[in-house]
Amino acid sequence: MSEYIEHDKDKNSVGIVKKEFFTFAEPPDEMVLESGARLGPITLAYETCGTLNAEKSNVILILHALSGDSHVAGCYSEDDEKPGWWDNMVGPGKGIDTNKYFVICSNILGSCMGSTGPCTINPKTVLPYGLDFPVVTIGDMVDAQKALVEHLGIKKLLAVVGGSIGGMQLLEWSVRYPEMVTAGIPLATTTRHSALAIAFNEVARQAIMADPKWKGGNYYFGPKPDLGLAVARMIGHITYLSDESMRHKFGRRLQDKSDFSFNFDADFQVESYLRYQGKKFVERFDANSFLYITKAADYYDIRRAHGNGSSVKAFSKTGAKFLVVSFTSDWLYPTYQSRAMVKAMKKNGLDVSFCEIEAEWGHDAFLLSNARLTTLIRGFLERVYNQTAK
Amino acid sequence: MSEYIEHDKDKNSVGIVKKEFFTFAEPPDEMVLESGARLGPITLAYETCGTLNAEKSNVILILHALSGDSHVAGCYSEDDEKPGWWDNMVGPGKGIDTNKYFVICSNILGSCMGSTGPCTINPKTVLPYGLDFPVVTIGDMVDAQKALVEHLGIKKLLAVVGGSIGGMQLLEWSVRYPEMVTAGIPLATTTRHSALAIAFNEVARQAIMADPKWKGGNYYFGPKPDLGLAVARMIGHITYLSDESMRHKFGRRLQDKSDFSFNFDADFQVESYLRYQGKKFVERFDANSFLYITKAADYYDIRRAHGNGSSVKAFSKTGAKFLVVSFTSDWLYPTYQSRAMVKAMKKNGLDVSFCEIEAEWGHDAFLLSNARLTTLIRGFLERVYNQTAK
Repeated sequence: MSEYIEHDKDKNSVGIVKKEFFTFAEPPDEMVLESGARLGPITLAYETCGTLNAEKSNVILILHALSGDSHVAGCYSEDDEKPGWWDNMVGPGKGIDTNKYFVICSNILGSCMGSTGPCTINPKTVLPYGLDFPVVTIGDMVDAQKALVEHLGIKKLLAVVGGSIGGMQLLEWSVRYPEMVTAGIPLATTTRHSALAIAFNEVARQAIMADPKWKGGNYYFGPKPDLGLAVARMIGHITYLSDESMRHKFGRRLQDKSDFSFNFDADFQVESYLRYQGKKFVERFDANSFLYITKAADYYDIRRAHGNGSSVKAFSKTGAKFLVVSFTSDWLYPTYQSRAMVKAMKKNGLDVSFCEIEAEWGHDAFLLSNARLTTLIRGFLERVYNQTAK
Repeated sequence: MSEYIEHDKDKNSVGIVKKEFFTFAEPPDEMVLESGARLGPITLAYETCGTLNAEKSNVILILHALSGDSHVAGCYSEDDEKPGWWDNMVGPGKGIDTNKYFVICSNILGSCMGSTGPCTINPKTVLPYGLDFPVVTIGDMVDAQKALVEHLGIKKLLAVVGGSIGGMQLLEWSVRYPEMVTAGIPLATTTRHSALAIAFNEVARQAIMADPKWKGGNYYFGPKPDLGLAVARMIGHITYLSDESMRHKFGRRLQDKSDFSFNFDADFQVESYLRYQGKKFVERFDANSFLYITKAADYYDIRRAHGNGSSVKAFSKTGAKFLVVSFTSDWLYPTYQSRAMVKAMKKNGLDVSFCEIEAEWGHDAFLLSNARLTTLIRGFLERVYNQTAK
């Protein structure tokens, strides 16, 4: 996700939160992955906020996207200036109201923000996994999340919420463990990547793998493939924005100059912005995790895993209520893909609400503060809670 | 341009053509560039087809895009299997009918297909220019073309035709040398790059410059930055296609396998296609030329150079007739940009025809055989020729 978002520290914060860790699948009871490979032990970093009610009926699982983490809301200390990535939505009185709901968010399997991934030490070699890390799928991520949820003693989730790759995870949750999912809110997502989305991910991966410092994934004891990862991030960034938002935000404005440089420095603001985003990203993200998570997203296809080629058949496996939201300027997962998803859900008689929100911010719109989105999510959760959990 | 296009050798070919060379701006009479830098000598590679009439009133100048060359139509020998890049449009009886018109196409300044560019030997150092080559602009390219046209004894062009970056050149021709341009056919182009178009070019340049083999542009005596250039080309390729065309051409079909590889090989056809295109491109194109030409395109802004910020004012400098064509699925230079151009032309009372062609092939559509486009171009040229050149 983009760093485009400006976080404001607000008085309606969930306050201080703590990153916690849960380890499972200790050998020999390793987790069997969709590929058939085995992996263990597995650690998931996670955070919670709000209070679990006595009936454990107020649980909302939030699933993050490509570069996100478990830090969905609140701050790590009083001095922490940067709240969690969805602090505008999650907190007391907010769209996902932590006065009512108990929120769980875990870092996905394969990531680098505390959960097991390619940068983790492989117990068999006592070295970082690198490319020995097995290719994980969205389904594998969900299986790991399920282990965490059960570890927390929770049998049923009031709602699962996620945007982008987080949305794929929630769709998978709904058909893989239907008995555990009362409702789902897929935002700016798709049931499978288009050729265009795969193409962008593939070029980004190629940019990483073209960096000689990548060294086949074994770079953990030397310089990192920062240049390749920066290019990959820049490609991603373009897809998160939109023609319109870039026109408004940058246009053809020059960066700190009144005329062209006539060299290959950054002349335009949009160039400086992308370079900066690339540079900032490599400080916090692991190149191999980028490869693994984008591959999982490209592989994901709800029809393939659950519907024998049919999304209608796939959604026949769930009874969840859904609130599906797309954004007008999202060209990575355009509205037509959400509409197709909604159609397949409705053909199964599911209780589905759908809204396309007018927004110029492209794919990133789902992360930005948006009164319409907040109202929709609040209303949907209230209805589901009143109908089922009270 | 994309290699996406299948060329058919056809009986209506212009036949055997020859690449010729014109050298000018010999020191000390170097060409003064827009940046103020001086460059010379300058060689342009060019080709012609058709026959120049006695009045020299049947000349059509065709301007190529990023990776094109002077080889617009015909073949280099009887055994040559690959005709020029616009052979479907240029030839006897074709849209640009070489039975009637005399066609000139030259390789642009800064390119690597025979014209002077960064891979040319700098006479001052007797080494390839590399980044000592000055940053050239679309205007500089046009100035060099003008020298060639005058060298051929031609005072007026019946029409100037170009798509994409070639279209920018023709717009520049029309306002820089209005007395020489009777008509112009800008296809799938724009009067200036959007932030989105600049962003894609910048990321492609970053991919090249991130390749350690690029060595600040001085790679001509060693290994070339092939990996970086391949990534740059792949990024470009995605922008030349469209969501729709990629869905139809590739969808989620796997390449030579029935199941996922669960590694980082190319699983999907779209991945193989992009890797292949990247690989093929580095065999024929110079990485530094890619930097220079994309920079020229990003800099181009008809308002800035000719209109004091206004495109209406810029087009007040020309009396040319125009046929403007855009394509529905072109998201690099979307139709709204062509409409804005047409509006500015019309505000000057110019004779402008505009057509948005329904095509799913994205930006590349202008290069593909298209009956509608052929008919439009043929009709427009006939009208202009009958009105002015007969």
